[in-house]
This record gives sequence, structure tokens and C-alpha cells, in this order.
Amino acid sequence: MEPAGARQSTLRASNLGLVLRTVCAAAAPISRADVASALGMSRATASRLVDELVAGGLLDQGERLAPPRRGRPATPLLPGSGFAALGLQVDAGLLAARVLDLRGRIVAEKVEDGDFRDSDPAATLVRLGALVADLGLPSTLRLVGTGLALPGIVDGDLLLRAPNLGWSDVRPADLLPGLDPVLGNEADLAARTVAEVAPGRPGPHRDFVYLSGQIGVGGAAVLGGRVMAGSDGWAGEMGHVCVDPHGPACPCGSTGCLEQYAGRHALLTAAGLPLDAGPRELAAREADGDAAAGAAVDTAAWALGVALAGVVNVLDIPAVVLGGSLGELADLLGPRVEEHLARRVLSARWRRPTIEPAGNGPAAGATGAALRALADVLTDPGRWLT
Amino acid sequence: MEPAGARQSTLRASNLGLVLRTVCAAAAPISRADVASALGMSRATASRLVDELVAGGLLDQGERLAPPRRGRPATPLLPGSGFAALGLQVDAGLLAARVLDLRGRIVAEKVEDGDFRDSDPAATLVRLGALVADLGLPSTLRLVGTGLALPGIVDGDLLLRAPNLGWSDVRPADLLPGLDPVLGNEADLAARTVAEVAPGRPGPHRDFVYLSGQIGVGGAAVLGGRVMAGSDGWAGEMGHVCVDPHGPACPCGSTGCLEQYAGRHALLTAAGLPLDAGPRELAAREADGDAAAGAAVDTAAWALGVALAGVVNVLDIPAVVLGGSLGELADLLGPRVEEHLARRVLSARWRRPTIEPAGNGPAAGATGAALRALADVLTDPGRWLT
Repeated sequence: MEPAGARQSTLRASNLGLVLRTVCAAAAPISRADVASALGMSRATASRLVDELVAGGLLDQGERLAPPRRGRPATPLLPGSGFAALGLQVDAGLLAARVLDLRGRIVAEKVEDGDFRDSDPAATLVRLGALVADLGLPSTLRLVGTGLALPGIVDGDLLLRAPNLGWSDVRPADLLPGLDPVLGNEADLAARTVAEVAPGRPGPHRDFVYLSGQIGVGGAAVLGGRVMAGSDGWAGEMGHVCVDPHGPACPCGSTGCLEQYAGRHALLTAAGLPLDAGPRELAAREADGDAAAGAAVDTAAWALGVALAGVVNVLDIPAVVLGGSLGELADLLGPRVEEHLARRVLSARWRRPTIEPAGNGPAAGATGAALRALADVLTDPGRWLT
Repeated sequence: MEPAGARQSTLRASNLGLVLRTVCAAAAPISRADVASALGMSRATASRLVDELVAGGLLDQGERLAPPRRGRPATPLLPGSGFAALGLQVDAGLLAARVLDLRGRIVAEKVEDGDFRDSDPAATLVRLGALVADLGLPSTLRLVGTGLALPGIVDGDLLLRAPNLGWSDVRPADLLPGLDPVLGNEADLAARTVAEVAPGRPGPHRDFVYLSGQIGVGGAAVLGGRVMAGSDGWAGEMGHVCVDPHGPACPCGSTGCLEQYAGRHALLTAAGLPLDAGPRELAAREADGDAAAGAAVDTAAWALGVALAGVVNVLDIPAVVLGGSLGELADLLGPRVEEHLARRVLSARWRRPTIEPAGNGPAAGATGAALRALADVLTDPGRWLT
């Protein structure tokens, strides 16, 4: 038999989590009475749990508002602004360090553009560490964890391979002293910023396929708000779905991979633009009637249509969200890709797949890395109450 | 507040389910003491719950065995043989009616080979109903439900489209009076027979991609023993993943779909064999050095490699199980497909995908349909105790 004390403490931990998640999930501040009613608890129980979370800084109290009708003014509750997480990102085109608090606000950030293709891992991670040192965080802020988004395949604390950085078998913790970051794939973490607009607050989509346009193309499948991991955490490699087996060779060893048509480098090269041009220059050329730019967009849309049709046929998740450079081109690409999907998705006649932009900005991986660290607090807040 | 009686009855229902599932999951008969120890219950509680299930026929007691050392002989417990479900299947090449009991044994079956391509739904379902009437089931057998496996897209009790039957918008319940079958996709249900060797007893794989070789190619992705459904239950359409966008037109409206290379008809046509030949004739010709047969197998293996590489890149489930005609050709196809996967799956250098045959026979969809109906009993056995 489990001792009664242990059972009670498990129940308390579980109830603290329920209360914190209820406040975090709400679109606007809610009161103790709202918490009680949402969770089917007595007001006394809800108040006691809220008080404990307020005392520990996991919840903040706002100014009392006049009640809509009569009765005592209710105190609005908000996620605690004293708790935050550090999200880091190394991408071929940027380094980012971003601190997100429990309300989902960016408390501090440093983003450095650069060219990190075929970079030296040690030198690059030292620069990232310097960005962190420059953040100048208030000493009162409690950092619950650090995440690092990388454009490659990770296994525990090891980056196995990030083709566009030219990195293999790198252990970032060794080069970021004192940070001990939890590694994650960039697209998996960026997809989180669509599933969750703030820690524990659901975003507009809960089931979607996410494509992240970088030098290459990353991806993630999100089901019920959770990123599908697969057997080893390597799911979502949409960039290496084969579009045309007779197509161009991909550095991965295969041929005709999606990123050979829809990755940023492939698009810019096809359009006759330099590799440091942005998606907006491509879009401007296309709007001016430039034939090469038009053909590059058409080819990318066709390739996205073929690859995403396969993904939707397999997963039956008919909402696709485009991030990164693909997100910036979503207005151009969306309608064309939807036409290809309507033709190639078996169930499209009953439910037509849709494409839309993520609108989550260039360092979405860093935001996602911080969101993932903050999710641990929502799962078990008792650990953070001292 | 919930009344105490309601809570107790929920607890009892939940405990009855735990006990029944523990007995069903065991590879060999277990005793009341084994149940108690597996579930961390007192022997008295376990015995009381077992007695209730035995009284209701959901568990049977075997002959007492001499204990391995000393002590009272233990009574072995088995799933109740008096409970069964009816699994039906309509395929382009067969009709099947199969009764499976709670131990996973086939109690009765009727399988009729035929050509049901472009058949009349009403006439075909009447023939299926006649097979059911011919089963001659003992009146003591308690049928808990009926499932019907169909090679197409289903939506609730409506078959939206089964291209190889030539059926659209058919409601089978209208034509199978008194049976009220739960519809399911053939490949989804056949995949269940790999995930579960008997009701509630796990099979050799819990995470795998299943391909069902029929006239076309069906598929399912299984994660943790559960078939992935997708947003509308239409996931797993691997047969319509594009292998080559410049390839042959598919009746689905797309081009170069996997089933245009690896479906039974495509394989036999490419090998110069008649459409009523079996996969074994194809294999025999290939073994005799027939060039057309060899080329057909090579092309199918290549197409499977391209399509499955995409599926594994997206899902990170590196075990593929081949059923139906593809299962019969697994010895020929397996090593060749594995070579293509090793080249085209991004993570193959760290974990090489494997291919193996399902070995689940021609009417696996009917078995899976019965397994699904029996799963309802395991979820909530209290409903079946009167």
C-alpha cells in the first residue's frame, strides 16, 4: 500500500498543475471563481491552490476589476512573469537567444544575422554563448531551462548531422558552459509556436503539417497540439520526401528531394538571384513579370504539391502551415499548391487541403525551444515551488 | 458532487476491464494470483473481479494445474470462448465472413473467391449476407458486434468510394439486414492483425507501416499498437503516394501513384501475366530468369523504395510490414526495397529501415474487423455482464 501522505502529495501536485494550466490556457485573465468552475472544484480548494501558486510566483494577481453585475470585485489571475525560459537557435543564416516568460512575452532577445554555412561549431557556439551573456537579464528572473533549436537530426544531447551548417556529431553542451540546453529540431520547435501562442495557450491550429523554409526545408506533423516525434524523434523530414526520383541529387544521398525545389537556395538559384537575396526580392521579381522568377515559384509550388499530397495521403491532416522563407512566399505559393493538392490528395473531393502562412518570424525555433522548456513547468509546477 | 454509488460502479467497471485485459494480454493462461500481482491488487479483490467475469462468461477457467513447487493448485484463466465477433470483408477478389472468439480463434468462416471488380453493391452484399447465414453458429455463442472491411474510403456508415470495386456512396447496413456492421478500411483493419495476435494480446510489432497489396495498394501507420486515423479516418493512403509525377495516370486523378507500380494488377501487367495470375506465378517466373517478371519486380521494389522512404522520412517508423500480394512477394521485394530505403531515408545511417512479411493471410481485413469489435469488450466489459 502507498502511504496516505504520498497519495495526498501526488493529488496536490496534480491539482496545482490543473489550476496553473487553466490560467495559462485562458485567452484573458480569469478569477479564482472561474478556476473553480472550470475544474469542478470548490471555491475554497481553488483559492487555496491559487494562493500557493501566487506565493511561489507561478501566478500573478492583476488589479481588481469592478464586477460586471454586483458582488465582490474579482482579482484577475495571470501566469507568473517571474518565470521564464531561454530559447536558443543556430541556423545557417542567424544566431538567436530569446527569453520568453510564462505569459509568452519576449523578455529579452539578441538575434545576429550571419552566414553559418560550413561554420566551425566551436566558434559558432561561443558566439551564441556571447549573445546569451549580452542579454542582461534581471537577477530576479527565474530561468527554468534552456532549449536549443538546430536545423538537423538530434539524438539526446548530440547533434548527429545538420547538413546546411556542415556539422556532424556535435555536443553543444560542451561548448555552452553552464547552459546545458535541451536540443530540438528547428522545424519541430517552430511548429510549436503555431500550436501554442503562449505557454499552455492553444494556437489557431491543433492538427497541421508544418513546413519550415530555410536553406533547405524542415517539417513537423502536429496532432492534437503535439509534435509527432516518431521512433527516434526524427519524424517530420518533409524536406527529403522525394518529388521526382529522376530529379537533382540531394546532399542527403537521395534524388529529387522537396528541398531541391522549394528550399531557399533552390528557389533563388532557379530565379537567377544571388543566394543572399531574400524571398521578398523573389516575390517582387515575380510580380514584375520576370520569367525565371515565375518559373521558380511554379516549380516550387508543383514540388510542394507532389510532396505534401503524399504527406496528406499518409497522415490525413489537411491543414498545411508554411513558415520561414516559405511563409514569406505563402501568398504566391498557397493557391498554386492547393490546386496540386486538390488533384493529388485522394480525399480532397471530400475535404480540400488548405495552405496558410505561419507568421511566426525568423527565430521561431528559439521561441519554440523556450516554449518547450516552459511546458515542463505547466506539467509539474510543484517542482518549482520552494 | 457525484454520488458515491456512481463512483464505486465506475471503479468496478474500470477494475473489471483491467483484469480482463491482463488475462487477454498474457501469452499463456494465468492464475488469480498472477492477476493480483500484475495489477497490484489484493488477492481477495482480484478473485472477486475474476469470479464476476467468470460468472458472466468473459473469462473461462481451465483445468487446475499442479503447482511448480508446493501450495494449492492454481486455476488457469483464459478469455471466455463464449464471446465472439463477426468480421466481414468485401474485396475485389473475395468475400469473407469470419467469426473470431475472445481468445482469437476462428470459430467459423466462409470465404468465397470471385471477381467483384465493378460489381453491383446490392447483389454483392446480398451474397455476403448469404455467407453469414451459412456460418451455422451455435446459439450459445454471444456475438458482440460486426465489422466490415472495405477497400476504400469510409465515413461513418457510408462507403464514400472503393475504386477497385467501382463503388461510390454505398451504405452497407441497408443491404445487410440485422447486422449493422461498423465499417473500416481494409488495410487499417488488416494492420490490426499484426499489432494484435489475439484480442488484447500484442503482436510482434507495435510501431510499423503496413502495406496491403491488393489490386491496388492500401496502407496504415501503426503507433504504439494503434492505427493512426488522421482527421477523418483517412490516413494511411500509401498507395497514392506519388513515386514519379511523370508516371502513369492513376484512376484517383493523380499520376505515378505507388499502386501504379506495386499493385497486383500493375505487377502482373508489367510481367506479361494475366490479371487472374497470383503473386506466386510471378515469383516462379522471376526465379526462372524471365526478364519481364524480373523487371516488374525491380520496378515495384524501386517504387516501394521511393514511396516508403517518404513515409519513413515523415513518420520515423522504420519497420515496414507487407501484407496481401506484397506479403507473398516479400522474399523477393524485401532486400531490394531495403537498399532503396538505405539510400533515401535521411536517418538510415543511424537506424536502417526493415521490411518483413505480415503472414496474415488473404482475409486479414475480416479478422481485423472482428478484432476491432472485440476490443470494445476489453475496453468496458461491464457492459457485457448482465
